Amino acid sequence: MKIAVLGTGMVGNAIATRLVQLGHQVMMGSRTATSDAGREWLRAVGGKAQSGTFSDAGAFGELVFDCTNGANSITALRQAGAANLRGKILVNVGNPLNLSKGMPPTLTVCSTDSLGEQVQREFPDTLVVKALNTVNCELMVNPSLAPGDHNLFICGNDESARHKVANWLCYWFGWKRDNIIDLGDITGARGMEMWMPLWLRLFAKFGHPHFNLRLMMGSR
Amino acid sequence: MKIAVLGTGMVGNAIATRLVQLGHQVMMGSRTATSDAGREWLRAVGGKAQSGTFSDAGAFGELVFDCTNGANSITALRQAGAANLRGKILVNVGNPLNLSKGMPPTLTVCSTDSLGEQVQREFPDTLVVKALNTVNCELMVNPSLAPGDHNLFICGNDESARHKVANWLCYWFGWKRDNIIDLGDITGARGMEMWMPLWLRLFAKFGHPHFNLRLMMGSR
Repeated sequence: MKIAVLGTGMVGNAIATRLVQLGHQVMMGSRTATSDAGREWLRAVGGKAQSGTFSDAGAFGELVFDCTNGANSITALRQAGAANLRGKILVNVGNPLNLSKGMPPTLTVCSTDSLGEQVQREFPDTLVVKALNTVNCELMVNPSLAPGDHNLFICGNDESARHKVANWLCYWFGWKRDNIIDLGDITGARGMEMWMPLWLRLFAKFGHPHFNLRLMMGSR
Repeated sequence: MKIAVLGTGMVGNAIATRLVQLGHQVMMGSRTATSDAGREWLRAVGGKAQSGTFSDAGAFGELVFDCTNGANSITALRQAGAANLRGKILVNVGNPLNLSKGMPPTLTVCSTDSLGEQVQREFPDTLVVKALNTVNCELMVNPSLAPGDHNLFICGNDESARHKVANWLCYWFGWKRDNIIDLGDITGARGMEMWMPLWLRLFAKFGHPHFNLRLMMGSR
């Protein structure tokens, strides 16, 4: 599949690399087509991919992974272009972290809104699916970095898009289908993003990011 | 032990009832000493306890469980009285839910502050410990309502107070000590309270509140 990965940070890098390994046609998008991070990544994957501007990548991908820094996602996606993104599934992976005041970051939006909703409002003709933002980027593409069963959440206004993304996460990244919990429409992104402060606190405590939560379900 | 339980809602009821069953001297506090909920609870526990105003209960307890509605906690605790609460451990159980606009509630405070911190700032001479707010009230006092191991979080500025509360949660309510994760100072309350929107979404999805999260820890 032709897949765009927007963002050349750790998250974009992890996802794009895995997709190249799987044999997909991948274009990594960044602000400038000749970004150092983009070129370094191209070298790392042995040139078996492309890099370009956000707009180049938005036009290229049949599917778009938005791995941009949450604080800049809307700006980056505008550069990718509403026309390029129209009708496509966009997996919004970022968290709306405000890193301007040091660690730990706070959220730029929470409780009554979310980054996932902001992106969906800004691009009403795009099928926005929130996913993967609750785990570390290495774990996103290698769930076995945490032991046993553990859960991932997914939400978005289009049910068919949610199902497709959930299946891709299984086929491509190794998640178990039963461990992916469908939270319904895009307002589910509020809770998914608000998990981040607890995740960050646990990361600080344990000193590494290779953990995830598992829901232990009782009965009524 | 002489224990005050502030708040006559579901949470206060569950905790106070369990403490009475364990043989503690319990006073439930509410806005008015003769509240219907307080009297009903007294009947339910066979009169083996007391009820009074927030101030009565604050004066009575050597330990205070603050189970008030998060939106009203500061007001209720002012009625309990800073002098009554001075030097005591206060377990802040509530979440800062804004229920005024229907379900699901939003949070009155998040990201850069928390109810736990607000309470600690308002009562600097009280040892505020945030705990139990991440699970349903029946599960608080009966962790076996969710299967196997699952986790509880605790935070507060006083380490000794955190340890005491963690031990009480084990002895009294049946939590396993290894499953209680110490998040350090009271700013940990941000993440603990911000878990609530995801919890509420899962509650809506599964139709019952008898679940909890378990951390699945990998290695570096």
